[in-house]
Amino acid sequence: MTPHITLVGAGPGDPDLITRKGLKALQSADVVLYDALSSDELLDETPAHCQRIFVGKRAGCHYKKQEEINALLVASAYEYGHAVRLKGGDPFVFGRGQEEIAYAREQGVPTTVVPGISSCISLPELQGVAPTSRGYADSFWVLTAHTRSGGLSKDLLLAPRTDATVIILMGLGRLDQICALWDAEGKGDLPAMVIQNGSRPDERCWLGTVNDIAGRVAAERDKGPGIIVLGKTVSQHPNFRNGALEAVTNELSISVR
Amino acid sequence: MTPHITLVGAGPGDPDLITRKGLKALQSADVVLYDALSSDELLDETPAHCQRIFVGKRAGCHYKKQEEINALLVASAYEYGHAVRLKGGDPFVFGRGQEEIAYAREQGVPTTVVPGISSCISLPELQGVAPTSRGYADSFWVLTAHTRSGGLSKDLLLAPRTDATVIILMGLGRLDQICALWDAEGKGDLPAMVIQNGSRPDERCWLGTVNDIAGRVAAERDKGPGIIVLGKTVSQHPNFRNGALEAVTNELSISVR
Repeated sequence: MTPHITLVGAGPGDPDLITRKGLKALQSADVVLYDALSSDELLDETPAHCQRIFVGKRAGCHYKKQEEINALLVASAYEYGHAVRLKGGDPFVFGRGQEEIAYAREQGVPTTVVPGISSCISLPELQGVAPTSRGYADSFWVLTAHTRSGGLSKDLLLAPRTDATVIILMGLGRLDQICALWDAEGKGDLPAMVIQNGSRPDERCWLGTVNDIAGRVAAERDKGPGIIVLGKTVSQHPNFRNGALEAVTNELSISVR
Repeated sequence: MTPHITLVGAGPGDPDLITRKGLKALQSADVVLYDALSSDELLDETPAHCQRIFVGKRAGCHYKKQEEINALLVASAYEYGHAVRLKGGDPFVFGRGQEEIAYAREQGVPTTVVPGISSCISLPELQGVAPTSRGYADSFWVLTAHTRSGGLSKDLLLAPRTDATVIILMGLGRLDQICALWDAEGKGDLPAMVIQNGSRPDERCWLGTVNDIAGRVAAERDKGPGIIVLGKTVSQHPNFRNGALEAVTNELSISVR
């Protein structure tokens, strides 16, 4: 029994957005540790003998602490052989995958990383909005609003001064504060988009501007997380009309899937 | 014959890093338009009757202009049916995929977008460096140094003032100018990494700091493009030793593949 750990990005939700390499890893797994963000359908790709261990969040609570997950992952590889750690999105983007890999290496377990389709890029794309696009944006900046100390991050204060497409995760509860930062830079008319449940059947998307999006989203959103996109490139959304606020159902997302 | 266009991201080079959804699109293609960045092995996934049309760059020259590609893509869909446009990396990140899709929609052709694994995120990852990682970086910013007017972009002047992991594409020819911007902000000791031919058998990777990486890379690089990564998170590379410049072969990348 040779222990090996493969860290696999499951993609944003649609089980067809996993890579072929990730699928191959699942198909040769002896044990899989998965979180709530990865699709249950992907677990069906594992062999019959494969152990399935849930280590995610449920109802906002971490089921296991990160240190417990690290230790369980290594112990599972020693017990079963090929341990696949399946994580939603890309495991190295806001995923703490790096910590799991670093711990496994310290413990002498060989590791492989299989990148995943990151939600922060792909969910805007599935709505028809490119992070970069000639004449609209030459760069994109992906931030989280949620710092460990609880305040808004210093970089969020600099972001409104750039021409980047700014993509913010874990910031929906502070959407009004975030938009105020852009408004203070004279960018109240900048196109803005919010997505919840991206790439899933219950996907929601709102379009508007920095000045008007927060109110509408606050009235209609569910309590789950969402992605905020601020930038001229949002105006490329097929339903965007000169900054007018317009609700978008998940039809577009379904049509492009 | 119903025309349809599917824009597929091929991923960074390794043909196993395409998504299952992208593979399915190739397997049902009647015609595929591909560029030099996508793997030739992926073309073998297309059916025997599928037409294969090269529309990429060779030897630094665009084989076809963007407007010609747009028109050919739409004409191919009308002539053959399901036209797959296969592009390296992610088609909406520095890929002009948005322009192709916008043109197709204007011409009344239904379109689908299949995101790909973006080189800008995955190539650092395959070297063991996470764009974000707890305690190292809370955000990442992807820029190109190459503006349409030829100068350094305004955002490149702001980037050194942030705590973001900065990932720069199309900037290798100006690596010394770029590093000077970081040095001017007192960040000469910031870890730095350069990757060429990422995820391919001839992958090269250099590690160092803002102050010392440009000289070494200039002496050893080939004339192709490369990715520059500047940020504390680079110090997580398994071969990084306290800022010491150390050449890295493609062994690591191969071992994690």
